[in-house]
Amino acid sequence: MDIETPAALIDETRMASNIARLQERMTALGVRLRPHVKTSKCIEVARRQQEAGAAGITVSTLKEAEQFFAAGFTDILYAVCISPDKLDRALALRRRGCALTLLVDSMVAAQAVVATGHAFEVMIEIDSDGHRSGVQPEAVELIAIGKLLHEGGAVVKGVLTHAGSSYDLDTPEALRRLAEQERALCVRAAERLRSSGVPCPEVSIGSTPTALSAQSLAGVTEVRAGVYVFFDLVMANIGVCAPENVALSVLTTVIGHQPEKGWVIVDAGWMAMSRDRGTQRQKIDYGYGAVCDADGKLIEGLMVSGANQEHGIISRRDGAADAGVVERFPIGTKLRILPNHACATGAQYPDYHLVMASGGTEVWPRFQGW
Amino acid sequence: MDIETPAALIDETRMASNIARLQERMTALGVRLRPHVKTSKCIEVARRQQEAGAAGITVSTLKEAEQFFAAGFTDILYAVCISPDKLDRALALRRRGCALTLLVDSMVAAQAVVATGHAFEVMIEIDSDGHRSGVQPEAVELIAIGKLLHEGGAVVKGVLTHAGSSYDLDTPEALRRLAEQERALCVRAAERLRSSGVPCPEVSIGSTPTALSAQSLAGVTEVRAGVYVFFDLVMANIGVCAPENVALSVLTTVIGHQPEKGWVIVDAGWMAMSRDRGTQRQKIDYGYGAVCDADGKLIEGLMVSGANQEHGIISRRDGAADAGVVERFPIGTKLRILPNHACATGAQYPDYHLVMASGGTEVWPRFQGW
Repeated sequence: MDIETPAALIDETRMASNIARLQERMTALGVRLRPHVKTSKCIEVARRQQEAGAAGITVSTLKEAEQFFAAGFTDILYAVCISPDKLDRALALRRRGCALTLLVDSMVAAQAVVATGHAFEVMIEIDSDGHRSGVQPEAVELIAIGKLLHEGGAVVKGVLTHAGSSYDLDTPEALRRLAEQERALCVRAAERLRSSGVPCPEVSIGSTPTALSAQSLAGVTEVRAGVYVFFDLVMANIGVCAPENVALSVLTTVIGHQPEKGWVIVDAGWMAMSRDRGTQRQKIDYGYGAVCDADGKLIEGLMVSGANQEHGIISRRDGAADAGVVERFPIGTKLRILPNHACATGAQYPDYHLVMASGGTEVWPRFQGW
Repeated sequence: MDIETPAALIDETRMASNIARLQERMTALGVRLRPHVKTSKCIEVARRQQEAGAAGITVSTLKEAEQFFAAGFTDILYAVCISPDKLDRALALRRRGCALTLLVDSMVAAQAVVATGHAFEVMIEIDSDGHRSGVQPEAVELIAIGKLLHEGGAVVKGVLTHAGSSYDLDTPEALRRLAEQERALCVRAAERLRSSGVPCPEVSIGSTPTALSAQSLAGVTEVRAGVYVFFDLVMANIGVCAPENVALSVLTTVIGHQPEKGWVIVDAGWMAMSRDRGTQRQKIDYGYGAVCDADGKLIEGLMVSGANQEHGIISRRDGAADAGVVERFPIGTKLRILPNHACATGAQYPDYHLVMASGGTEVWPRFQGW
């Protein structure tokens, strides 16, 4: 593989299998899948998800909405509560024909949406696990927001929640419980809105761990998930994939050693891996990443234990000094590093290198910024 | 300030003062300053450093070398040990007139440099504190590498070290001791090379904390430092600056609240701040950053305590639920967040917004990738 290092590789076979796995699960459970493209920020990746059956996309920034709309994606959910000063930019997208849906969780934001005079499609964010934003499913404010939007001329499309605390779990039982809580509380919020006369056709829930754990999705219309397309070591520790499913890796080159310490120095530092240390408090702490050979086969027991901006230090996970590193990993050796967090690692790169089953490669751009 | 959030701001007054402070110190100590431009990856920032008296630049990637050379910088030190498969790209720069200096710390890399047949200028990396790469100052191999290069037709320009373990210190005494160790061991390596007949005109040392702590730089010819140009909260905890000196901040907008918890939700998540949690094990843990008002004045006691990709959660550092957050920080409020680590935060952005003393702003591009 003649690719300059460090580089972000996508294993096409693994990605296809990850896409198929969640898509088939969602189809079997009777809901639409709306992938979150914040993970890849890559048109080509989203096209693969669309071809496999995804319905629309989820974005985390207006830049994503603009980029994907320019590439032909029209059904776009912007799943971060709208900042009133971003309404002009959102409106410009709507006027160009983008079916952009906004999100609110406050009277202030709902009022700002209504004040535009444009019939924005809007969802209301529900807090189903206390980890971030959203209104409580039983809150009086939920109905007030719904009525303000509905009576003010906006189209209340539904309710949305994200059980992000699923990232803190690591047993199938706990994940199933949280998935059911995410479903039940969001469905409950929808029922309250409907009872009060506010239309609420859509119930949108999801996170990769809960999407892969839910037993029933009764009352849900769509599921959102992002990182499943690549998976990563955090997801492996949570238990929803194996390290062998991780489709994103960083290709790196050995540039030196500290033989007495058993250290291999590579050209993938934190700029190449990101500063994400998501496995730090999980079952297995992989440092800045798990080490594979150039073909992607895991080398058991090694990790990127330290990272400077452009230097990674590979050593044994158990802390022992590895023997014979100079001979086993001579300068020039190529390795692949599996990331803790695919969204953060991908963000460090202007493009991905797709590695096809044939061994051939292709460059897929990704974008940066807001 | 009419800037879409999140955005990376540079406070021009603070940056100018940071640049002047180190430049004046280095001039007083009789050495050249060769700033590390990996921090900013921004031509305009490096021009300010050059105008203040810097001599040449340091880079961490060949992309940086290419970008800065294209902008007129010719004296460039690539301070990561050269990977043999990157020699062609380095040679192309040399042939276009770039005075590019390479770094090696092994016989294998030195042999690869010599094998090109080109009279590369090369420095040898010395390990002065055990934190990463480099040969030991007393190692037999140091002389062997020097002779291999010198006799093989390369130009041995000198020795280089970086006491990166300075980031783990936080007292002036410990910093002064490490600065002296960095100086003494690198000078010692230079003396050994000279005694063995290998020319070694340059002795290059540095890290921001040691550069600001060294009492004597006898025998040193140049100092390298990067993050001093912006400073950050890690540097404030180390004790070489105050939070009020930090020139880089992230402008963000309040998009919601969780009033019972005293949380303010902003549109600067980890994508905007980076995943760097460098203050986690320091005197003051600032979470993902310290909170200032829109003018950059620190709001004591607050931090970005949690971050999702595009959501930041601001709460009190002492863990207590802040009262009245909805009234004090209404939706739409602009805040500035000081970063843990300026190099990592800057890397999340395609450009900086320079905020001039006049209040006017200017966009300065920065680049990404390798």
